[in-house]
Amino acid sequence: MVRVAIVGASGYTGIELIRILNQHPQAELKIITSRVQSGMRVDEYYPALRRHCDLAFEDADPDRLAQEVDLVFTALPHQAAMDFVPEVLGRGLKVVDLSADYRFQDAKVYEAWYQPHKTPELLSQSVYGLPELHREEIRASKLVGNPGCYSTSIILATAPLLSRKLIRHQSLIADSKSGVSGAGRGLSLATHFCEVSGGFKAYKVAEHRHTPEIEQELTRVAGEMVRITFTPHLVPMSRGILSTVYAELLDGANASLVTDAFRFFYRDAPFVRLCGSNVPTTLQVRGSNYCDVGWRVDERTGRVVIVSVIDNLTRGASGQSVCNMNLMCGLSEELGLGAPPWQP
Amino acid sequence: MVRVAIVGASGYTGIELIRILNQHPQAELKIITSRVQSGMRVDEYYPALRRHCDLAFEDADPDRLAQEVDLVFTALPHQAAMDFVPEVLGRGLKVVDLSADYRFQDAKVYEAWYQPHKTPELLSQSVYGLPELHREEIRASKLVGNPGCYSTSIILATAPLLSRKLIRHQSLIADSKSGVSGAGRGLSLATHFCEVSGGFKAYKVAEHRHTPEIEQELTRVAGEMVRITFTPHLVPMSRGILSTVYAELLDGANASLVTDAFRFFYRDAPFVRLCGSNVPTTLQVRGSNYCDVGWRVDERTGRVVIVSVIDNLTRGASGQSVCNMNLMCGLSEELGLGAPPWQP
Amino acid sequence: MVRVAIVGASGYTGIELIRILNQHPQAELKIITSRVQSGMRVDEYYPALRRHCDLAFEDADPDRLAQEVDLVFTALPHQAAMDFVPEVLGRGLKVVDLSADYRFQDAKVYEAWYQPHKTPELLSQSVYGLPELHREEIRASKLVGNPGCYSTSIILATAPLLSRKLIRHQSLIADSKSGVSGAGRGLSLATHFCEVSGGFKAYKVAEHRHTPEIEQELTRVAGEMVRITFTPHLVPMSRGILSTVYAELLDGANASLVTDAFRFFYRDAPFVRLCGSNVPTTLQVRGSNYCDVGWRVDERTGRVVIVSVIDNLTRGASGQSVCNMNLMCGLSEELGLGAPPWQP
Amino acid sequence: MVRVAIVGASGYTGIELIRILNQHPQAELKIITSRVQSGMRVDEYYPALRRHCDLAFEDADPDRLAQEVDLVFTALPHQAAMDFVPEVLGRGLKVVDLSADYRFQDAKVYEAWYQPHKTPELLSQSVYGLPELHREEIRASKLVGNPGCYSTSIILATAPLLSRKLIRHQSLIADSKSGVSGAGRGLSLATHFCEVSGGFKAYKVAEHRHTPEIEQELTRVAGEMVRITFTPHLVPMSRGILSTVYAELLDGANASLVTDAFRFFYRDAPFVRLCGSNVPTTLQVRGSNYCDVGWRVDERTGRVVIVSVIDNLTRGASGQSVCNMNLMCGLSEELGLGAPPWQP
Repeated sequence: MVRVAIVGASGYTGIELIRILNQHPQAELKIITSRVQSGMRVDEYYPALRRHCDLAFEDADPDRLAQEVDLVFTALPHQAAMDFVPEVLGRGLKVVDLSADYRFQDAKVYEAWYQPHKTPELLSQSVYGLPELHREEIRASKLVGNPGCYSTSIILATAPLLSRKLIRHQSLIADSKSGVSGAGRGLSLATHFCEVSGGFKAYKVAEHRHTPEIEQELTRVAGEMVRITFTPHLVPMSRGILSTVYAELLDGANASLVTDAFRFFYRDAPFVRLCGSNVPTTLQVRGSNYCDVGWRVDERTGRVVIVSVIDNLTRGASGQSVCNMNLMCGLSEELGLGAPPWQP
Repeated sequence: MVRVAIVGASGYTGIELIRILNQHPQAELKIITSRVQSGMRVDEYYPALRRHCDLAFEDADPDRLAQEVDLVFTALPHQAAMDFVPEVLGRGLKVVDLSADYRFQDAKVYEAWYQPHKTPELLSQSVYGLPELHREEIRASKLVGNPGCYSTSIILATAPLLSRKLIRHQSLIADSKSGVSGAGRGLSLATHFCEVSGGFKAYKVAEHRHTPEIEQELTRVAGEMVRITFTPHLVPMSRGILSTVYAELLDGANASLVTDAFRFFYRDAPFVRLCGSNVPTTLQVRGSNYCDVGWRVDERTGRVVIVSVIDNLTRGASGQSVCNMNLMCGLSEELGLGAPPWQP
Repeated sequence: MVRVAIVGASGYTGIELIRILNQHPQAELKIITSRVQSGMRVDEYYPALRRHCDLAFEDADPDRLAQEVDLVFTALPHQAAMDFVPEVLGRGLKVVDLSADYRFQDAKVYEAWYQPHKTPELLSQSVYGLPELHREEIRASKLVGNPGCYSTSIILATAPLLSRKLIRHQSLIADSKSGVSGAGRGLSLATHFCEVSGGFKAYKVAEHRHTPEIEQELTRVAGEMVRITFTPHLVPMSRGILSTVYAELLDGANASLVTDAFRFFYRDAPFVRLCGSNVPTTLQVRGSNYCDVGWRVDERTGRVVIVSVIDNLTRGASGQSVCNMNLMCGLSEELGLGAPPWQP
Repeated sequence: MVRVAIVGASGYTGIELIRILNQHPQAELKIITSRVQSGMRVDEYYPALRRHCDLAFEDADPDRLAQEVDLVFTALPHQAAMDFVPEVLGRGLKVVDLSADYRFQDAKVYEAWYQPHKTPELLSQSVYGLPELHREEIRASKLVGNPGCYSTSIILATAPLLSRKLIRHQSLIADSKSGVSGAGRGLSLATHFCEVSGGFKAYKVAEHRHTPEIEQELTRVAGEMVRITFTPHLVPMSRGILSTVYAELLDGANASLVTDAFRFFYRDAPFVRLCGSNVPTTLQVRGSNYCDVGWRVDERTGRVVIVSVIDNLTRGASGQSVCNMNLMCGLSEELGLGAPPWQP
């Protein structure tokens, strides 16, 4: 059994981790922390969890964590993660960090989009936790930077075609649509029911912070500097991300080669399901760790249109972090993540 | 392993059964049938099920069922169930019927609200499949009539107080609110997105067919003829039922006795969670087999107000039918139903 | 032209008033105030209003109001209204107050449910602003306490039958369901999209503050002390209230007399539409000042079930306040409120 | 007064037309037709319309129309419009056709995407009913092909920049998201509440029939053959379209020139509101005839991202058709369309 803790467990990412770990046959959740909710039982805070988790939120104490657990999920805000992760890493624990703080190889890129980095020396040890791209490195790592939700959907939609050099890397445009839980459980007018329900909007056009991590990973895959235009949107639903990615086909590329590229790239991926021209809906992956991908070639314009869907809380955050835990602890990638999506 | 089939598997009840059985450690789904979808793979019809179920819909053949399975879930419309259930029952199979056809002890009551009954002689063998009321009889039965969704939520909210004679049985009013999946997957203007979204309505006021089964069960519990006023409503959400039940307290009854009655009645119920004065929301049981119940005494008017919530597809249909299968097959009531509710 | 101001105009009630007044042929909106948004143009705050309102929020100044307008809508929180209303009333202005502070005849009732009243002497001058009950008094009044949203829907559903003595006044139960805008635009976990969407809940069971104003008005109509049990619920939609009201029919009462009572009571009511046994949905009144009412007699239990629907922001607040303004200023009750409901 | 009829009035486009015409000071709705609902009063079919419209659906009779009205709105399916429009046009009536049948100049284009055209000779008389592009021709026309909903949002987002030659016309990509009412009131699994709610999907990727009319109009504006990649998506909401349009800036183009181009192009457009970098949400135009447009330049990639929003039933269909009626009948473009959008 892997003994684990969740630091910063009171938000949606935290409860999703608790839900998943509750069904995991080889993980035991020992400690959950929350600065604000410290002292409260989690099943009072989330009545859904009654009979599933009898832990109470505690303050985060690195020494106690080092005694009680093997691996820590840090679900803290950017910056707060940087302060805490070294504490537990230094005490020998493995860490899956769900913030952006350990997703980047190059501290300068992080600092250009976020703020000064306090532990840039750790970046060379950390691995970007997308199993389809970095499975072996994750297995060998003690620190994983769990990918952003949008990033997961866009990189998985694009990497196979860049890898095979079927698309012009300068032509990438990602138009993504997310459910509201991606904004977290904190209060803001932007997540007020009446400001969301019945409407649809774009936000952070051409300036969302997931852009540089997408570019980092696609650049690695392509072997060339990739720049994308990325627009996130807010859908009046709780869970799910759909990314529609546009790219120009290079000369000689065609629908058949596109299909081959996807099949080959994901030949051993337990959590990617290929849909061909039946492009997927977010509902078919809700509550699961799947990324479903479909595509069509627009012969009239010479572009390929790729549609990928994930559950932003599962594959886009907590489910993927459990995948990473599995790999880091020598378990099967799929363990504890086998339940079917939620329909309807 | 219990080998099972689902007859009439293409609707929401069917897919919910497939989802649950996929995670059941001691049941094996062997056959799914659908007259209309016969020949189609279920994971083409419901892409969510890819990598979880590779069965194709077949026509329902009683002989083949008798060879291949031990128990059949019949998810057919009223009337069609009556035609089919005797076929498999006669071949020695156990049956959990999700229609109304085998919920009634008295064929006359059925016929007053539905249509003529073709196999009234089977009613004396069938058991009303609410484990909290009939656990032992279900264990011994070969034919279970799985309760209606509204009925489940209302009976569980009311039985403890009638049983203890704390409320005036003539005063019962049940005001229930259901998600749209209760209306099934068939097409009708009433389930068109634009006719539901952003609105709320009542329907079948004082004439819904779940009324007589609620009265049958509450009459048994009370030992007196119970009549209720029942109003169903439609909520713009996919899953969930909340029932608000009103009753006059009898002389001597009070909040403390009400609490005692609930605690005693459900002292051994794995799927009922008592919430006291923190009345529950449908979200806290979504995707699970729980019925959560809360209550308040209105001192000013001498009434008790009980609020119960279930997931209409899980506890209100497919989850409860798996409970019944468990009991009929000598398994633990809880088997395969242990995953936490879906949040958010 | 009636010159008007809205004090406390930045919330949903405020913007709904601006929307309605924008189409009113004989009212001119001169001033809008907001403590927090002071200085900001309303069409920056609500881009929907561009080309419809070029006012900026100001601080509320009684002297300036007295110079510029004839009537003030106060859309302030309880307590804040009590502080402000006397200021403008004393300067000769007419006031429609949308808080609860001037809805009660008896300060003791107010104080039992809210807090100490600072200007109890004004209560004898104020009129409860439900035109169907108090049309003539409103016409003659300078201070109107605009009814609560739930109260409006419940009183209109019940008054005709109490007036005709067709129902037992001790038997009244009101089960109401509201859209989220009723909770206002302020931030709280209870209105976070992910805590509302896909779910349904009850709240403030047997303790909601609209109870005493409903009882005050129904007691007047009935000529006997009326007590009700009232349960509010939250529907995942932005606008609308549906109230399902239950009452026992008195001896001799029947469906035909019930129908007669409704028809007679609302024979001259431009904003009440009777639906008979086709009980209404909230969608059919959305965006309008209508209250639609339907009913059914449950012969089996001797009860009548009444279903009434309103738009909580229009009839339940801002639309009704414009009705009151019309009456107080000698205009036709219907003026400015003639647009059809919003479908779909 | 302009006397008008709606042929094919029972769907969402029909009821939206009735709603708008009800508030129009110079139009009188005399006849509504529906093959299926013939004989039924519209306010029984849509109870929202009680006290607003007392017409009953009739069968469509060209002779009777010629006697009673001046202008006909045809809200028929493609193909059916082609059969009917010549009948009334030949009797001297003006026609605004809401199908695709009269949107194209070139019958071959229509036939490549739809079916054989029966009256290609009428195409030279018909005008594409987008006032911002064809105001004067609409004024002089007797037959207007009312634009598609997606087309309206995309053309208005793009025309100013093509007109000024600020963007590379080969680079246009339109990613559009629509509410469900765009699919009409007919029954299909795709509009079943449970198949839409809580999810998001793309459909008809690279093959939607609005593509050729967008290209026709943008080609006219650009003076060069324009080809676009267009992807429609379905949002779980009833009303609204948001289009995110991507284009490469040509050398020398920049944010300031982009802004100038929008301002100049829409300097006299009563129904286009420019939002600059505050990109709009669909909620801010709901229920109105506005198209709100915002944009941002992505300096990193040299692209401009334009976001336009409309209400698909108002600006995308019925509201725009009333605009066209106004122009065709010598009235002010804005008449009857002055009410503010619906918030929240």
